Amino acid sequence: MRLTRYFLPVLKENPSEAQIVSHRLMLRAGMIRQQAAGIYSWLPLGFRVLRRIEQIVHEEQVRAGHIPMLMPTLQPADLWRESGRYDDYGEEMLRIRDRHKRDLLYGPTNEEMITDIFRAHVGSYKDLPLTLYHIQWKFRDEIRPRFGVMRGREFLMKDGYNFDIDQDAAIHAYNRHMVSYLRTYERMGLTAIPMRAASGPIGGDNTHEFLVLAETGESEVFYDSAILDLKLGNRVVDFDSREECEAIVREWTAPYARTDETHDEALFNAVPEARRKTSRGIEVGQIFYFGTKYSDPMKAVVVNDKGERVPVHMGSHGIGVSRLLGAIIEASHDDRGIIWPEGVTPFPVGIVNLKQGDIATDGACEALYNTLRAKGLEPLYDDRDERAGAKFATMDLIGLPWRITVGPRGLASGLVELTSRRTGQSEEMTPEAAVSRLVQIYENH
Amino acid sequence: MRLTRYFLPVLKENPSEAQIVSHRLMLRAGMIRQQAAGIYSWLPLGFRVLRRIEQIVHEEQVRAGHIPMLMPTLQPADLWRESGRYDDYGEEMLRIRDRHKRDLLYGPTNEEMITDIFRAHVGSYKDLPLTLYHIQWKFRDEIRPRFGVMRGREFLMKDGYNFDIDQDAAIHAYNRHMVSYLRTYERMGLTAIPMRAASGPIGGDNTHEFLVLAETGESEVFYDSAILDLKLGNRVVDFDSREECEAIVREWTAPYARTDETHDEALFNAVPEARRKTSRGIEVGQIFYFGTKYSDPMKAVVVNDKGERVPVHMGSHGIGVSRLLGAIIEASHDDRGIIWPEGVTPFPVGIVNLKQGDIATDGACEALYNTLRAKGLEPLYDDRDERAGAKFATMDLIGLPWRITVGPRGLASGLVELTSRRTGQSEEMTPEAAVSRLVQIYENH
Repeated sequence: MRLTRYFLPVLKENPSEAQIVSHRLMLRAGMIRQQAAGIYSWLPLGFRVLRRIEQIVHEEQVRAGHIPMLMPTLQPADLWRESGRYDDYGEEMLRIRDRHKRDLLYGPTNEEMITDIFRAHVGSYKDLPLTLYHIQWKFRDEIRPRFGVMRGREFLMKDGYNFDIDQDAAIHAYNRHMVSYLRTYERMGLTAIPMRAASGPIGGDNTHEFLVLAETGESEVFYDSAILDLKLGNRVVDFDSREECEAIVREWTAPYARTDETHDEALFNAVPEARRKTSRGIEVGQIFYFGTKYSDPMKAVVVNDKGERVPVHMGSHGIGVSRLLGAIIEASHDDRGIIWPEGVTPFPVGIVNLKQGDIATDGACEALYNTLRAKGLEPLYDDRDERAGAKFATMDLIGLPWRITVGPRGLASGLVELTSRRTGQSEEMTPEAAVSRLVQIYENH
Repeated sequence: MRLTRYFLPVLKENPSEAQIVSHRLMLRAGMIRQQAAGIYSWLPLGFRVLRRIEQIVHEEQVRAGHIPMLMPTLQPADLWRESGRYDDYGEEMLRIRDRHKRDLLYGPTNEEMITDIFRAHVGSYKDLPLTLYHIQWKFRDEIRPRFGVMRGREFLMKDGYNFDIDQDAAIHAYNRHMVSYLRTYERMGLTAIPMRAASGPIGGDNTHEFLVLAETGESEVFYDSAILDLKLGNRVVDFDSREECEAIVREWTAPYARTDETHDEALFNAVPEARRKTSRGIEVGQIFYFGTKYSDPMKAVVVNDKGERVPVHMGSHGIGVSRLLGAIIEASHDDRGIIWPEGVTPFPVGIVNLKQGDIATDGACEALYNTLRAKGLEPLYDDRDERAGAKFATMDLIGLPWRITVGPRGLASGLVELTSRRTGQSEEMTPEAAVSRLVQIYENH
């Protein structure tokens, strides 16, 4: 993408309404625009990151054997009357009446609707196990929306639902989700720690939240620092294997890690003092096993292998897709702006032309631009007629992890400069070497 | 995808509520489920097609130089009060009041919001031309939703908006959209004819609708059959060239083609009688040039090259993404079910195992399954323990364009059968030859 043809409305001033760094940087980098309290437009740069995150979530869910679909944003109130949650949900539920005076609501979550779909179409244990998920906009009418996309009202969430014949099978689904989430967050460059949580309005006993450590987190968290050393990496996981998934869950849940809601001082004090950490955390996902909480009242039953009708065991599993942009920035930025991890960056690399209009530098930039595109590494090419300082400041602000700087002096020796946003270190090399290096860096993303 | 692990709830019976064939087939093929009047869930098979269509729309918009972003589903009423449309829009607009008693609405279209974004961030002619688009769920509270996703209430639309310095530049944007739409529909296997249209609530003089010929279409259409011979094919188009885009628009608008709203009997009678056709059509897109209709009241002005503040010239351009599934099925089906064009099929090919449990057929199917996946051609493998007739009926119903049948008799000579859903013709060949053939067929999709 050529910057002169893009829509990247960066702000020079710090927006006064933003209280936390991710909100400030998303506004300054021209990623979002507030349209109403807690309701945002995703400007082109923000949209690119949102799509990357969505794509990673899809890939990891499919890898775990979960099936994508899509439920609508609006739901009939009657479904929620069946589960008993229509009255419970309170003012956070956005209630709507259509022209025929029928009650609708903007879905804050989808347990009722997915249970309705299941009971309409599935009747036998032979069709289990089944996990369906979607990535769809939700609405929660927060009394005080704040922190940009971190606590918006209209937000994008992945929510998945497992249907299993009994508790053991459902616990396997729970474990499968935990494993798939670990890899999902790792691919985004995040350390998200699974912590035992309280269940809240979804219900259920078994539940873990995934928290990213950040000063601005809404929860206080207590953990054994040993958990920070765990990495899933490229481990090949057989998601059908109960043992394999359970072993990974055991590995990640062995070190103490809890939020203030479930914190147990005695257990925490058993952790060696040097590893005992207190911090704040941003919740970026949560998994639940809640058994027959919805299948009982909504009569989602299947016939088991003995010919008996039994309610299915369910769980629900969410990832805060839009909120993740804020969380990633909270965890990865510096004074000059955002530092995108390679997995989610809007463009893998930026090209800065130090002398726009010069035949040699323009030519070298165009060649790099086309070569990178041909390799599937769409660059953002700053082809504006601006001074170098302004171009560097923009690149630093929007946080592309790599920058290639092309200037007349280097070109005289056939060299360009490759700079890491994270370390700030630059290296001179030929354009071909820079392309090879980038291809290598992005091979696993 | 293995069918035993998928969620494909096909119906044996014809659903009584469906009046038209696409609605009937989408329900029978387990693609959608109605959740409220005109509000649908997209079950896994339907979601796959929806994503394919979305992907094609994105690719062709980006090819034309248009920039993707995303606006929210809910909008503040105040924006619509500025343009004067809040009161005009009538009961089709779903009006919502939040917990703080602020008026919101579920966006039926986005002219106001995009104009608001533009005026907040763009001030100079140097930032033009600019075309922004998004693909987002919309809501229109139809008094009588019907025909499944063809006239739903919650529907997915691509809507794009161009901002240009004057009428000439905006007409180029209009032409660019027409050209990009022609290729978009062609890639979906559709013949969508641009027809001069009336403007309706968006406003504007220049407007064309794109109509797919089908008996169940809501509009009567009159056209010169010469237009059916026009194909854009793989023509390379320079979207920056006004002349090139204009020439293509002239080519497609030269033959007479109008809906009943703009039909001109005298002009129509000038078409040679053998080519004069009357039919019905389904609208799948519309483009508008409306000048300063929104930029005037909403004060979206830029400074031109003389230093004067002038309102920008705009247009808006829509593609009915979710409705297209219905339109494609209306245009491409037979007594046995759907016939997906290669460009939008949920799976490129189906594998039917005629003797599940037999070591040789199972082995051959597994090998084909893995080879096709490795080639990027994800097959739907019917690995159920069902008789051949039931497997064929399911494949025909869901309409995959190609089927590979694997049975013990053929395998004895090292052969499988490749069958075209469209022609019904089968050919025996080695598994390797079948894979090569499919790779070749899908090369351009």
